[in-house]
Amino acid sequence: MSHAPTAALDHRHRTIRDDLSARSLDALVVTALPNILYLTNFTGSTAIAVVTPARIHFLTDFRYVTAIADSKGTAHECPNLDLVTVEGSYDASLAALLAALSPPQGSGPAMRIGFEAAHLTVSRHAWLVDALARHGSPHALVATEGVVEHARVRKDDYEIATLREAARRLSGVAEQVIADVRAGQTEREVAIAIEQRLRQAGFAKPAFDTIVAAGPNAALPHARPGERRLTEGDLVVLDFGGVYDSYCVDLTRTVSVGRASTRARDVYAAVLEAHDQAIAAVAPGRSRFDIDGAARQTLAGRGLGEAFGHGTGHGLGIEVHEDPRISRRRPDVDTDDAAVASRMVFTIEPGAYLPGWGGVRIEDDVLVTDAGVDVLTNVTTDLIEV
Amino acid sequence: MSHAPTAALDHRHRTIRDDLSARSLDALVVTALPNILYLTNFTGSTAIAVVTPARIHFLTDFRYVTAIADSKGTAHECPNLDLVTVEGSYDASLAALLAALSPPQGSGPAMRIGFEAAHLTVSRHAWLVDALARHGSPHALVATEGVVEHARVRKDDYEIATLREAARRLSGVAEQVIADVRAGQTEREVAIAIEQRLRQAGFAKPAFDTIVAAGPNAALPHARPGERRLTEGDLVVLDFGGVYDSYCVDLTRTVSVGRASTRARDVYAAVLEAHDQAIAAVAPGRSRFDIDGAARQTLAGRGLGEAFGHGTGHGLGIEVHEDPRISRRRPDVDTDDAAVASRMVFTIEPGAYLPGWGGVRIEDDVLVTDAGVDVLTNVTTDLIEV
Repeated sequence: MSHAPTAALDHRHRTIRDDLSARSLDALVVTALPNILYLTNFTGSTAIAVVTPARIHFLTDFRYVTAIADSKGTAHECPNLDLVTVEGSYDASLAALLAALSPPQGSGPAMRIGFEAAHLTVSRHAWLVDALARHGSPHALVATEGVVEHARVRKDDYEIATLREAARRLSGVAEQVIADVRAGQTEREVAIAIEQRLRQAGFAKPAFDTIVAAGPNAALPHARPGERRLTEGDLVVLDFGGVYDSYCVDLTRTVSVGRASTRARDVYAAVLEAHDQAIAAVAPGRSRFDIDGAARQTLAGRGLGEAFGHGTGHGLGIEVHEDPRISRRRPDVDTDDAAVASRMVFTIEPGAYLPGWGGVRIEDDVLVTDAGVDVLTNVTTDLIEV
Repeated sequence: MSHAPTAALDHRHRTIRDDLSARSLDALVVTALPNILYLTNFTGSTAIAVVTPARIHFLTDFRYVTAIADSKGTAHECPNLDLVTVEGSYDASLAALLAALSPPQGSGPAMRIGFEAAHLTVSRHAWLVDALARHGSPHALVATEGVVEHARVRKDDYEIATLREAARRLSGVAEQVIADVRAGQTEREVAIAIEQRLRQAGFAKPAFDTIVAAGPNAALPHARPGERRLTEGDLVVLDFGGVYDSYCVDLTRTVSVGRASTRARDVYAAVLEAHDQAIAAVAPGRSRFDIDGAARQTLAGRGLGEAFGHGTGHGLGIEVHEDPRISRRRPDVDTDDAAVASRMVFTIEPGAYLPGWGGVRIEDDVLVTDAGVDVLTNVTTDLIEV
C-alpha cells in the first residue's frame, strides 16, 4: 500500500465525484492501475475500483486482500472502501457488481456507468456489455476519458512532499554517479552501479530502464547500456530515475570523459541554454507549447533545431510519463487547454543528437508554483570532465 | 533490438500470415509491444506494426529509427520491413497508412484489417474508425484476439535456447542468493542484493518486482520487501526473475532462518510434493487444468487446500506472465482447448500461505518436450537452513 493520508484520498474522491456529477454519471469503473493507486493507495498488480457517490467498491484477489485488511484503521486507509474478493474472473465479478448496483432514489432503473475508454480494451468492453445484458441489467456503459488523470495533473500536498523528497534523493544519487564514472567502465557497468545507488537511496526500483550512452551511442536518445567502454573524448548521457513511495522522478546529466572538445562544449552550452530558457519560461498560465518553444528556439538559433527530435518534458507522478506533455503542438491531436498550472510537476529535458558523433541531454524536475517555478532536482549543470 | 535470427522472424511472419488468410483478413495492425518485438526484434517503447501479405509496415519515431537502420544487413534484421517515421501522432500516421493500403488484385476496394482487440483501447479504436472515415477509406477494422499470442505460446529454437540460457543464469543467481541470505538482513537488503546479482549475471533487468518475504510476511504471496529483519525461525520466500535478451525467467525458493520447526518442515514438504507432482504431470497433450490439479490435490490431501489461493503456473517468454495459464478451470471464461504442447515454457509454483504464520512457495521453469518435460531451472529443492 502507498502512504497518502486518508484525508487526501477523501479529497481526491470528492474531486472525482464532482466530475462524475457534472458528467451525469452514476458511477465510474476505474481499471487503470495508476488511477486505482491514486484513489485507494493500492500498489498491487491487479484490481478494479468502482466509484459511486458514497462508496469505493474494490475488487481484488487473494494475493492482496491481506494487505487491504492490514491497512484498515491506519492513517493511510482508503475511506468508504467495500472489498470484493475476486475468485475466478475479474470482469465476471465486475459485471455482477455493476448489475447489482442501484440507481439513486427518484431516478429510473438504468444507471449511467462511466468506464475509462483510454484504458479499457475493445475486448473487455465488448465482454462487459454482453455480460450486463446477460444479467438483464438496464445500466449503460459510457465512455469517459481522463477523469482521474485530470485530477492527478495538479499534485496535492502529500504528492508534492513525496516528489520533493524523491527529487532530493535522486540528486544525491546523481552526485555519486558523476563522482563514480570513469574511463574504461562499460555502459552496462555504469548502469548497474546507478541502479544499485538508486536502491541504496531508498528507491523501490528504477522508474524506467536506465540509459548510459557513450560516444556515438549518445546520439540515440533511448540507447540501451551495452558493452562499449567509456573512452577519452566521449560524451556520456546518464539518464535515470526512481520510484519512491510510488512516485517517479527522472534526471539526466551528460559528462565528458577527459577533456571535452570545442564542439562538445558548444553543443553542451546550447543544450544548457535551452534547458535554462525552458525553466525560465515555466509559470502558471504559460502554455506548455511555449515552454517547449523556449527550448526549441534556443537550439534552432544555435543550428541544432534538427538535432532535437523529442519533446522538452513530461509530467511526473505515479507514472513516469504523464500529463502535462511539454511538447510541440501537434495540430492533429492537440485541442486541449495547453496552460500549465501551479502544483504541476514535470521534467525539462532538451537534448541534441548528432548521428555518428554523439549527444547531450540535461534534465531536471520542476514544480510549478504560484510564484513561478521550483526546481526540485539540485545537481550542477556545469559540464563535468571525469 | 533483440536477436532472433532473420529466418526465425520470417517463419513467425508466415505463421501469422497463414492465420490472417484463414480469417479472411488482408492485414493485421499489431499494437501490443511484446507482439511487435516477436515479429520484428524491436525492443523500444513505442511502435506499431502492420502485417500485410508481403510487407511489415513499421511505424516508430525519431528515438528509434537509428536502431532500426543499424539492424539492416545484420543476421537479426527484420525481413520485408518498411519503416515509417512518425512525426506527431502515431494513430494519425497509422490511419493515413491504412487508408493508403490497396486490397489484393481482383477483390473489391475494401480491405478487412484486423486489430488486436485485447490490446487496443476503446478510445483509440473509436478514433481510428473515425479517422479512416475522414480519409474516405472503405476499409473495415475487424476485431481479432490472440493472433500473435497464439503463435508465441510454442517457442521456436531460438526462443528455447534463449530461455534455457536465461534459466541457467537464473539458477546460478539463486545459488548465490541462498548462500548470501542470513539472519539480521532486512528483506529490502536481500532484494537489493538479488537484483545486483541479476545484473551481474547478464540480465537486463528484473522481470518483476523482487519478492523477499520473511516470517508472517511470507503469508502474502506478493509481499513487497520491507524493513523486517530476517529472524531465527522465519521462513523466507525469495521470488525473483530476470529479462535476458528480452526473455523472462522466474524462480522461487523458500529458506529457513536457523532450524526449521516441525510445522515449517511439514508445510515445506507438502509444497515440495505438490511441486514435484505438478512437474510429473507435465507432458504434451495433458490438460493445464490437470497439471494444476496435481499440485492442488496434493496440498488438499495435506490439509492445505485453502492455503493455496493462486494458480500453479504461468507461461514465460517475452512477457513474464503469458499463456499457458496453469490454473483451475474457471467455468465462466475457460472455453479454450486446455492441453499443453511441446515447446511451451511455463512455471510450476505451488505455495501454501497461512495468515499470521508465514508461507512457502517453490518455483521452477519447465519446457514441454516431445518426451515429456525438461526442467530448465536447476537449484536444489531441499529445505535450506541458513
